[in-house]
Formats: sequence, C-alpha cells, structure tokens
Amino acid sequence: MAQQDRAIRTRRAILEAAASVFDDHGYDRATIAEVLQRAGMTKGALYFHFASKEQLALAVLEEQVVDIAVEPQKIKLQEFVDAGQVLAYRLRDDPIQRGAARLAVEQGSNHLDRRRSMASWGEFVEGLLGEARGRGELLETVVVRETAELFVGAFAGLQMMSQAFSNRADLSRRLTVFFEHTMPSIAVPSVLVRLDLDSERGARLEEALRRGRMADVAAR
Amino acid sequence: MAQQDRAIRTRRAILEAAASVFDDHGYDRATIAEVLQRAGMTKGALYFHFASKEQLALAVLEEQVVDIAVEPQKIKLQEFVDAGQVLAYRLRDDPIQRGAARLAVEQGSNHLDRRRSMASWGEFVEGLLGEARGRGELLETVVVRETAELFVGAFAGLQMMSQAFSNRADLSRRLTVFFEHTMPSIAVPSVLVRLDLDSERGARLEEALRRGRMADVAAR
Repeated sequence: MAQQDRAIRTRRAILEAAASVFDDHGYDRATIAEVLQRAGMTKGALYFHFASKEQLALAVLEEQVVDIAVEPQKIKLQEFVDAGQVLAYRLRDDPIQRGAARLAVEQGSNHLDRRRSMASWGEFVEGLLGEARGRGELLETVVVRETAELFVGAFAGLQMMSQAFSNRADLSRRLTVFFEHTMPSIAVPSVLVRLDLDSERGARLEEALRRGRMADVAAR
Repeated sequence: MAQQDRAIRTRRAILEAAASVFDDHGYDRATIAEVLQRAGMTKGALYFHFASKEQLALAVLEEQVVDIAVEPQKIKLQEFVDAGQVLAYRLRDDPIQRGAARLAVEQGSNHLDRRRSMASWGEFVEGLLGEARGRGELLETVVVRETAELFVGAFAGLQMMSQAFSNRADLSRRLTVFFEHTMPSIAVPSVLVRLDLDSERGARLEEALRRGRMADVAAR
C-alpha cells in the first residue's frame, strides 16, 4: 500500500472514531482520549491530521456532505429523492453520518458553528433542484432556495424524531411521507407520476453502490 | 391575592426561570442554583414545587403543550395552522417554549425522555387533524397519524434551523413555506382556497389573545 493510501485510511479511521464518540456523547463530553482508544491510534497519528477536537468535529461535518453521491437518473428530482433516501439509510449505521447529525442539531454550548453544516446541505439540495428547474421538472411556483431550506430543516427534525423513537429504523418511511406530502407542490405532473418514492429505495441503491465498489476493487 | 393564586404564580415564576436556564445551557449544564438566582427564590420555595432538576424539565415540557390554545375557527385546519404559527411566534421570546424546544431536541446524555414531548405534540396535532377529518376537510389519501408525525418532526427541525440562522426571527416564514408545500396534499380544494397561511398571522393572533386576557383581568 502506497504511503498516501495509508495516510488517507488513517485519517478516515480517526474521523470515524471521532464521529462515533460525538454520536455517543455529544461535542462537549467527547474527549480526544476516547477517540484515540476507539481508533487504536497514538496521539502523534491523530495530531498529524487534526489539531484539536474542534478540527475533528468540523472535518466530520464536511465529510458528511461529500459522502452522498447517487447514480445519475433521467429525472433530476429522482436524484434528489435518492440522495435523501440514501442518507436516511446510512444514518442507521454509518458513523460519519450519525456523528455529524448529532453535531448539527446540538444547540451550541460550544464554538462549533452549526450553520456551516446546514448551509452545506442547503447548497447541495439547491444545486440539485436548480438542475431540475433547468430541465423543466419544477412547477413555476417553486422558489428553489425556499424549497431547499425546507427540505434541510424538515429532514433534520425527522431524523431526530426517528432517532428518538426507533434509532432511525423508521427514517426511510418518514422521509417517504415527507416526499408524498411535498412533491405534488414541487414537480410538474409528468415528472410526479414517474417518481419512485418507495421507502426501500435507499437500501436498494446503497446495496448497488456497495456491489459497484467491490467490483471496482476486484478489477484493480 | 388568595394563597392558591400566590402558589400558582410562584410555581410559574420558577418554571420560567428554569426554562430560560435550560434554553441557555441545556439540561446537563443547568443548575438549580442558577434557577433560584434567576427566579429570586429560596431553595425551600423551589423544592416545595419541584423535587429535582428532572422534575423541573418534565414540567417545562408539559407546560409547553398546555400553553397553546387558539381561537376556534370555522375551518378546523385553520386552527391547526394557527396553533403552528402561534407557537412559531412564541418561540421568539416565551421562555417556556424556548426552554422546552431545547430540551426536546437534545440527544439524551441524560435521563429525560425526549419522546414524551414529541408524543404529546403528536397527540395534539392528531386531535386537530382528526376533527378536520370529521368535518370532511381532509383529502381521502391523508393518514392522520402520518401527517401529524410529519408535522411534529418537520417543525422540530425548522425551529432548530431558524434558531441557528436568525434566533427564530424567520420561523413564521419557514412555517408558511412548509404549509404552502404540504396543504395541497392535505386539504380538500374548497378548504385549501380558504386557508390563511400568512406568516404574520401568528403575531396578529397572539396580539388579539393578549388584548383579550388584559380585558379579562380588567373585568375582574
């Protein structure tokens, strides 16, 4: 394994350990010591990549948005739905997504700026909806920025509620309900009728992505 | 002032002080000492009403739902919208509502059961939507429980986002956007066309309620 590969893997392992500590204890109670213990690393390895607990938290929040990429679809709004469903599915067990979700909803007794995470998601969704508009998929009445912010805010609350009631097992279903309620106000009819809002879609897409990645690795 | 009146006011003053401490510091960092200081009360007065910090937090969460009562309207769905808008308005400066909101979204590093608050709101909304169904205001496709839970979850996230970006100054507007996106999937057309989703409505209703209360007091 090349040295650069190793550095990337080390960084990722530290991030995942940090995210799981943030998920369990929140920012204030998280300690570098516990991150080191979970990652099985030395202080030197960690401080080579991250200067502080705050740096770790910011990196977790940034990694979260980068991680969501879905297969291109004929209908751009379907990609928007898919990104939501893949995220909902990953929030069940992906440490980065879970840790970032907790960091993003904590009301700051700390210096972390929660707005950065929400603004990143807002831009991500706005980008997808903007492309959908360019293809004529959106109703005239849609204001892309408003709809994007509605989606980000509502999703944050739904994942929190799902976390409290089912450790996020029912999040895909709650998201489908959200899409069923809002898509008729967003999509033109010819797009609306073709959307797949099924709550199992996230699991299927994630499985396909995983198989694709394994094929990539085998082909090397 | 009768002794019972005094006891009710003392209890309320303690609750408001506790709620503002929870709002500022969260549950874990809140202390009874700071609650006493803000309320200007003795330990004895507080412990007469509340046995512990946990009891205080549970009382704040219960008071929150009790506090929302809106004027009866011809259209029941309008009362549902109104309850949301009044809550959005109060979340800007009502200590009970602000404290309860923070308690409800904190991911438990504590013994508080966040589900109680969300479940209470869910029942409140389900009750309103159930009455709307009884009057034929809802589309056949609406599943009252699903829509109620969507509303509670989405509201929790929208108020959190609004808190982060504007200290909740833009919450009424965000809520209007939510209603504009969802009501066409909930209300029958003859009701939909009559709904007032204006984001200033919460402020107007609250002002009317306040004037009504002052008139009540003056008439005593």
